[in-house]
Amino acid sequence: MAPTLESHQEKHSLVPTEAVPAQIEMPTRSRVTVVGSGNWGSVAAKLIASNTLKLESFHDEVRMWVFEEVLPCGQKLSEVINQTNENVKYLPGIKLGQNVLAVPDLENAVRDATMLVFVTPHQFMEGICRRLVGKISQNAQAISLIKGMEVKKEGPCMISTLIQEQLGINCCVLMGANIANEIAVEKFSEATVGYRDNKEIAETWVQLFNTNYFMVSAVQDVEGVELCGTLKNVVAIAAGFVDGLEMGNNTKAAIMRIGLREMKAFSKLLFSSVKDSTFFESCGVADLITTCLGGRNRKCADAFARNGGKRSFDELEAEMLQGQKLQGVSTAKEVHEVLSHRGWLELFPLFTTVHEICSGRLPPSAIVEYSEHAPKLSLLGGSAQIY
Amino acid sequence: MAPTLESHQEKHSLVPTEAVPAQIEMPTRSRVTVVGSGNWGSVAAKLIASNTLKLESFHDEVRMWVFEEVLPCGQKLSEVINQTNENVKYLPGIKLGQNVLAVPDLENAVRDATMLVFVTPHQFMEGICRRLVGKISQNAQAISLIKGMEVKKEGPCMISTLIQEQLGINCCVLMGANIANEIAVEKFSEATVGYRDNKEIAETWVQLFNTNYFMVSAVQDVEGVELCGTLKNVVAIAAGFVDGLEMGNNTKAAIMRIGLREMKAFSKLLFSSVKDSTFFESCGVADLITTCLGGRNRKCADAFARNGGKRSFDELEAEMLQGQKLQGVSTAKEVHEVLSHRGWLELFPLFTTVHEICSGRLPPSAIVEYSEHAPKLSLLGGSAQIY
Repeated sequence: MAPTLESHQEKHSLVPTEAVPAQIEMPTRSRVTVVGSGNWGSVAAKLIASNTLKLESFHDEVRMWVFEEVLPCGQKLSEVINQTNENVKYLPGIKLGQNVLAVPDLENAVRDATMLVFVTPHQFMEGICRRLVGKISQNAQAISLIKGMEVKKEGPCMISTLIQEQLGINCCVLMGANIANEIAVEKFSEATVGYRDNKEIAETWVQLFNTNYFMVSAVQDVEGVELCGTLKNVVAIAAGFVDGLEMGNNTKAAIMRIGLREMKAFSKLLFSSVKDSTFFESCGVADLITTCLGGRNRKCADAFARNGGKRSFDELEAEMLQGQKLQGVSTAKEVHEVLSHRGWLELFPLFTTVHEICSGRLPPSAIVEYSEHAPKLSLLGGSAQIY
Repeated sequence: MAPTLESHQEKHSLVPTEAVPAQIEMPTRSRVTVVGSGNWGSVAAKLIASNTLKLESFHDEVRMWVFEEVLPCGQKLSEVINQTNENVKYLPGIKLGQNVLAVPDLENAVRDATMLVFVTPHQFMEGICRRLVGKISQNAQAISLIKGMEVKKEGPCMISTLIQEQLGINCCVLMGANIANEIAVEKFSEATVGYRDNKEIAETWVQLFNTNYFMVSAVQDVEGVELCGTLKNVVAIAAGFVDGLEMGNNTKAAIMRIGLREMKAFSKLLFSSVKDSTFFESCGVADLITTCLGGRNRKCADAFARNGGKRSFDELEAEMLQGQKLQGVSTAKEVHEVLSHRGWLELFPLFTTVHEICSGRLPPSAIVEYSEHAPKLSLLGGSAQIY
């Protein structure tokens, strides 16, 4: 039987309340809502639902907001999820847990929730935030699993910042080497929670996501963790070019390393609080490796290079990705705008070259002519240690 | 025409010596000898030879010590190298440069050399050092390209330390993501020079190796750089197990990341001077990636796991590697001895598990049961920041 909003099973309903001294308030159990129900969102709901059943401090029920759609069979997606306990469209074959409840109405989904997990495509977040203003409890906590950012010339607007500012609630992030389908079948993996200053909240998120096959740890560096999740897609484009040019593992490893270094330097220039150690976490080096080995950015860039840059990324994306979107190319463009606006282009030859190749101004082979335009560290003066 | 010991071309022989004031000594040009002529040694000689021709401060001639052998054609290897300018056995098809001179006698090879490049299998180094005692000039500088170490219970004896102590000369190291055959055909790559305190010498080594397709940088951390070159082979064994178990890129990236973390922690516990930043260099993350993507350690461990551990590494090595040796298994054993002797086993679950699997005490699948034996950081007390 699928759970409902009204009738979820309460834990310890038999504990006599008179045993609790009057002056001590019963700690309120947290209610979790997952905002989003795509591939990764469904896996997140599954992870969380397995934990809320075990942990005293959470209500069992995990609500999952579903952007409603009508399936070819004529039924609504949210109804099928609640009937079958599977997201038949975005995560077929995986039971989410009986305590996951699909809710098609956003307001209903977040009502009374104290822990909000955001996991939608990043371009939807501004709209979702606008709809949620005034609708969520002010003691709610948020976490973003969304990779991507809004980049303006002044600098990137991180999704966690957008949530924090629009909704007036604290927002952590969770990033890592997380291929949803592999985690869905419980293959060993790791992730990183980035938090601003409240370590206790970070530990609560760790509790909520951590399982014996999904190891989560927390670091106090929300911007560093979040930027890793975005910038790695630019490096994956570079790695894909190397694959397409058949340059071998040696060159690919060099390009990935240079990419990691530019990720670190870019993040530290934007936010002086970013820590080097973050890049050794799952969100850093591990996610970079996963993304540069598999992943759609790598794949399309490989095809782009094999075609000598003669077929555009738009064309390849349409042909190869069945409607999924390529983030690396647009992120490279956005990063380029920031670099250009701040006069940092010469400090980031790899990021810059990726954009020049994507936009057709350089051939794919330029990616390994890096040595001709090594970073002009002298531009940094005393802050060359960012590198 | 092949060069000879006596008749190498001198640069600027027409510069009138009387123009030099008597009190200023003409700077002596450095003479380079490469001790070793295998696959990587031959590529090193090629890189160096292209630079000595260009740089005023070096004699053109690069001598390369060849462990003499008779080829199937009946000719001696050193003679064929000098006739054809190719190492027909270990690097066929690649011209080394006319200024490379193969020398079969070790003493002749190093005579008058001021810069010694050691690049032999690591098990030969003790013998070579014994033969060289008293035979090399005391102002000579050395660099080791040898990956591997001698591990005793007390701790590892690094090859650079062996050279330094046995020969009484300063020894740097050069490590990195360096697949010899890819560098031989001039594909883009990077490397790291590790030095102790003399930055000027390190810069000289960088000059000697750096080309437009082989980018070298120096870091003041000889132990960190050298340990990277050795320990990555243990991680490659772990990565190979994950491949053999078909766990996917996500799990592989997680295992590589945990491996990198243990490499860093192990190095820092042994040598407090080791720097975190070294692991972002080519010798660290890039070499790890290359080794875990290709490489013989990964390959044999993959086969080991696919056979459920039922065929030994000795058997697989004999069958798959055509006489080449697997370093990861013996390094894992040596590392295990150190960990066991110092009571650190519980701090290094990945290194420990690799050894337990290699020696048949655990099944290959144990590599991803890591969460059950996460590092007991509490054992470290205040020094938990090594992790």
